[in-house]
Amino acid sequence: MSKIAVVGGTGHLGAALAKRLVGAGHDVVIGSRSAASAQVVAEEIGGGTGFAANAEAVRDCDFVLVTVPYGAQAGTLAEIRGEVGSAIVIDATVPLVPPKVMRVQLPAAGCAALEARAHLGPDVRLVSAFHNVAAHRLAADGDVDCDVLVFSDDADARAQVIALIESMGMQALAAGSLANSAAAEALTSILIFLNKTYKADGAGIRFTRLGTATAPAAQG
Amino acid sequence: MSKIAVVGGTGHLGAALAKRLVGAGHDVVIGSRSAASAQVVAEEIGGGTGFAANAEAVRDCDFVLVTVPYGAQAGTLAEIRGEVGSAIVIDATVPLVPPKVMRVQLPAAGCAALEARAHLGPDVRLVSAFHNVAAHRLAADGDVDCDVLVFSDDADARAQVIALIESMGMQALAAGSLANSAAAEALTSILIFLNKTYKADGAGIRFTRLGTATAPAAQG
Repeated sequence: MSKIAVVGGTGHLGAALAKRLVGAGHDVVIGSRSAASAQVVAEEIGGGTGFAANAEAVRDCDFVLVTVPYGAQAGTLAEIRGEVGSAIVIDATVPLVPPKVMRVQLPAAGCAALEARAHLGPDVRLVSAFHNVAAHRLAADGDVDCDVLVFSDDADARAQVIALIESMGMQALAAGSLANSAAAEALTSILIFLNKTYKADGAGIRFTRLGTATAPAAQG
Repeated sequence: MSKIAVVGGTGHLGAALAKRLVGAGHDVVIGSRSAASAQVVAEEIGGGTGFAANAEAVRDCDFVLVTVPYGAQAGTLAEIRGEVGSAIVIDATVPLVPPKVMRVQLPAAGCAALEARAHLGPDVRLVSAFHNVAAHRLAADGDVDCDVLVFSDDADARAQVIALIESMGMQALAAGSLANSAAAEALTSILIFLNKTYKADGAGIRFTRLGTATAPAAQG
């Protein structure tokens, strides 16, 4: 079992992921700008879930999951950068530009994951994931029916995050480098468009015709 | 039944789509830079498939499907721009940058579909689609097991292309404006990565939890 901080853990996605992580037996700390807000969510989740302000929440963790709106990404990463140590940071930021959230609008750097790399500097272990899973599907019990694409330039960190996601009962797939995160980030606008156009309640994606090979850690 | 030119119809994707279109009863013309090369493929497909050089192939068609490598996109679109008339052009270009085809490298304009718009000018009816379907799965008989995302700023043209794809026995989904094509174009590098990492033979995508609503023509 791992120790995991969920920064932005008071949001819909963060709280839902935290609940799933606690359910899988992990030791979870909810982080927020205010420890008091974090406490409310931690008590709702129960199971001994901790809480703290972001910079304190991330200390001595195995994983730090960052689930904040795009507009808060830079500030949040600056807040935790000096505190994460050797933890693997999992950035879930999707660069939506309200109000046109159904339109793909990728940032100049190519994707939010590459912006996270710039914000965190070269020494922090960084993975991006969880861009496409609907928060309310995660919050409900049952199968989310959505594969999780996992991106990193660090194949070992990526493999550890895949194992973490599998421990939550979801299928996670190694999908390449941080730059490839652009695909999953862009896909979120497509899913929002499909939800509206087809009146879907949390559309997701599944990859088909995958082989049976595993061992993504050995891949580049 | 529609009349459809497949420009770049001598390539793997173009020939496979042409074969499916002929199988669905459409009137297909293979286009290529050389009419002689187009003739070879047209005769392989049979069923009365026509052939011509690209600029001639696209005349008086309902749809013009463009299936060329990224490096040939600008030149090919310049060749047909003055000849397509009121046909709906379906651009399938994926901006892969060899040799790093497993890395997402979107063009400065955001995606190849927006580049196609710039090459064709504002008056040509333009849709993008078919970025994620493996050519060898299309060429074989049977279910391709991959949804086709369809993008356009022209909702009526998009709906017509969705109907065309459905006539080929595939599920097509309205996925927003041309700018959203970035998601499908980027996803192609992910699928190539998955094929290698998981030893998959033509991985594809399916969207889950879609509602039962249709009528994408009514959506923006």
